[in-house]
Amino acid sequence: MDRLPGFRDFYPEPLPHEDVWSADARQYIFDKWRSMARRYGFREYDGPPLEPLELFTTKSGEEIVGQLYNFVDKGERAISLRPEMTPTLARMVAAHERAYKKPIKWFAIPQLFRYERQQKGRLREHFQFNADIMGEKDPAADAELIALLIDTLRSLGLTAEDFVIRLSSRNAWHDFFTQNNGDPAKAYDFYQAIDKLERDEPEVKQKKLAAVGFSLEQVESFITAAMPTPELESILGNLRARSLGDYVQIDYRIIRGLAYYTGPVFEAFDRKGQLRAIAGGGRYDNLIKLLSGGKVDLPALGFGMGDVVLIELLKARGLLPAFDAQVEAFVLIEDETLRNDSLRLVSELRAAGLVTEYSLTPMKPDKQFKRAMELKAASTVRLERGPSGEVVAKVKNLKTREETISIPGEVAASLQKA
Amino acid sequence: MDRLPGFRDFYPEPLPHEDVWSADARQYIFDKWRSMARRYGFREYDGPPLEPLELFTTKSGEEIVGQLYNFVDKGERAISLRPEMTPTLARMVAAHERAYKKPIKWFAIPQLFRYERQQKGRLREHFQFNADIMGEKDPAADAELIALLIDTLRSLGLTAEDFVIRLSSRNAWHDFFTQNNGDPAKAYDFYQAIDKLERDEPEVKQKKLAAVGFSLEQVESFITAAMPTPELESILGNLRARSLGDYVQIDYRIIRGLAYYTGPVFEAFDRKGQLRAIAGGGRYDNLIKLLSGGKVDLPALGFGMGDVVLIELLKARGLLPAFDAQVEAFVLIEDETLRNDSLRLVSELRAAGLVTEYSLTPMKPDKQFKRAMELKAASTVRLERGPSGEVVAKVKNLKTREETISIPGEVAASLQKA
Repeated sequence: MDRLPGFRDFYPEPLPHEDVWSADARQYIFDKWRSMARRYGFREYDGPPLEPLELFTTKSGEEIVGQLYNFVDKGERAISLRPEMTPTLARMVAAHERAYKKPIKWFAIPQLFRYERQQKGRLREHFQFNADIMGEKDPAADAELIALLIDTLRSLGLTAEDFVIRLSSRNAWHDFFTQNNGDPAKAYDFYQAIDKLERDEPEVKQKKLAAVGFSLEQVESFITAAMPTPELESILGNLRARSLGDYVQIDYRIIRGLAYYTGPVFEAFDRKGQLRAIAGGGRYDNLIKLLSGGKVDLPALGFGMGDVVLIELLKARGLLPAFDAQVEAFVLIEDETLRNDSLRLVSELRAAGLVTEYSLTPMKPDKQFKRAMELKAASTVRLERGPSGEVVAKVKNLKTREETISIPGEVAASLQKA
Repeated sequence: MDRLPGFRDFYPEPLPHEDVWSADARQYIFDKWRSMARRYGFREYDGPPLEPLELFTTKSGEEIVGQLYNFVDKGERAISLRPEMTPTLARMVAAHERAYKKPIKWFAIPQLFRYERQQKGRLREHFQFNADIMGEKDPAADAELIALLIDTLRSLGLTAEDFVIRLSSRNAWHDFFTQNNGDPAKAYDFYQAIDKLERDEPEVKQKKLAAVGFSLEQVESFITAAMPTPELESILGNLRARSLGDYVQIDYRIIRGLAYYTGPVFEAFDRKGQLRAIAGGGRYDNLIKLLSGGKVDLPALGFGMGDVVLIELLKARGLLPAFDAQVEAFVLIEDETLRNDSLRLVSELRAAGLVTEYSLTPMKPDKQFKRAMELKAASTVRLERGPSGEVVAKVKNLKTREETISIPGEVAASLQKA
């Protein structure tokens, strides 16, 4: 029996097959995400992986259903696996908004699902780092959020030569659209056309823009001029003060497809432009009000960073370490009359926090040592009976090949120091 | 709009309402689970939260479907959210068994789902720590697994006064059944009757046992005698060598309901007997063969520990710490001409690994200080212009109230040391 198409199995490294994913690399990335979010003062939250279907259609309209992993449950409820985290976040914040001081800075690492027509290698789930700030209108919040995005990627070893944040603004496009007498009823189609500029063929672009009363030249010269709005100037100044200016460029080709963005928007890309976006986000000042049925009105902004493109990029740059069990001590049991003493030693080493392995059953000494080597153990420990019957411990550092002799009760402390 | 019944929202502490769960406590428990598993040399794996329905009916029969969170997907596939991890583990191990040295020691922290008739407060999902050893028949593996279970609970602050592992054996019951001329065709019903001994009324017990040819007295005197089998003796001896003997007692009232257990079985309970089982597990030597369609035959054993009963127990014993943002430095910006310098300082502190907060926008000094206090920040840092225009940093330890003055570039190092 096989797993469902579009889903992933995560195995310990070294990986047994190219078709499976590394559970170790996943945890490594989650740790980096979590650790940087906390350093920035963001607090973790999570919701159910399933929500009422309505939560997602309220935000994105019925069209979204075609892409959702939705179904009817045994209680006849219309359900969907979550395709994104923002509706759950809005639901949760709206329910208990008063209990939290503003601005609210929260993050989550949800698994997200979609059910698109299956394409070769196309996944139906991924994990996403979500960070959001709620309750602050000032562009200082946008800068704080973008700084978190940059520092998270830097903590994985990526530099300004590997990635760039392309920063844009819905407000800039709104002003351009209004000043050129755009028809408000066609604004959404206009944004959609801009969003597709980098993918559509020239004739298609021209046709789409003409349909909303614009020419391609007009749009392209606006993009080329790229005059930053005051809010973008403010974000750039803030990021430069943090020495993060090199990671950002104004780029009005970014507009974000979703309807609900209201201010600055951004996407992170690899500099070589070989991959899809690493992350994307922006301001959505009206969404919490919409999703809470008018109950709570909080300006907000956030980003999402998926694990799949990120892992692709880290692999391409040689930045994913190889993982193993990180065994710190392998206890060799060569004298079976000392098995109980050895088990006590194993216990003591683990109690001291050391990753400790040993052979569960009697095994030839050379095989045990071979196993210790395969596991890349840092040290071996062997109990022996000394000349007057006392038990001594021989600790061997497998890197330096140095061997020291001590009493069993002191091994844990000596290895902790090393 | 509300979340689905039986699902949980996880919020940052302090919790806004008794109806929600702590994301911080959840992460604290996950960290303890993961850390002890690694110390024992277990490696992490994970599979999809959805699997083909057949994967679960193969193991547990069609009766299981009534309890599953199953549905038909858009591709007309019969799907289920995973109710337990073992079938996924068996599927994954069977697919790539040869790539891993035996014994295979793996763990996972999946979210599991069931769809039972909704009862007040009854959850439809929980998280479970799963640890399994595959490829070792010797009871030394059972002892290693039980030691991991005990040490995991100890790492959360629980002692031998808080919990006990009730250890039993399917083999002991099998021998008893055979020696008393039990009808092999009724063995499963017999095990089911034993499994319910602690919950059924006396008449019900008697009736069930009579139906399979046994008397309650016969069964109860076997339980009271509780003669350990050689394999249980071996497990006990092994655990005593690790000084873990106090955490275990032979108790034949434990038999585990599921059909597939083949040897030692065990459950962890709070000593006061107020809660449901904290964890349970045992040997299932034939299951991987069954689930892999005969492809792979590996003896195996494992346990599962859910988050819900565990949290209940930790709360009852006062062992769940209170969590906050653990802010190490709050940067006060009292002179707005120094905002950019302060932002640089914030960046440096975070780059040094310190959880750092500040007010995103201008705020009165006393309000900023109040916020630092609310966040329980360890220190505040304030930049000021000195007499000759140079910028100095005043670092205040909020516990000792001590204030030191340094240059901004040295604040990170001084706080790291503290």
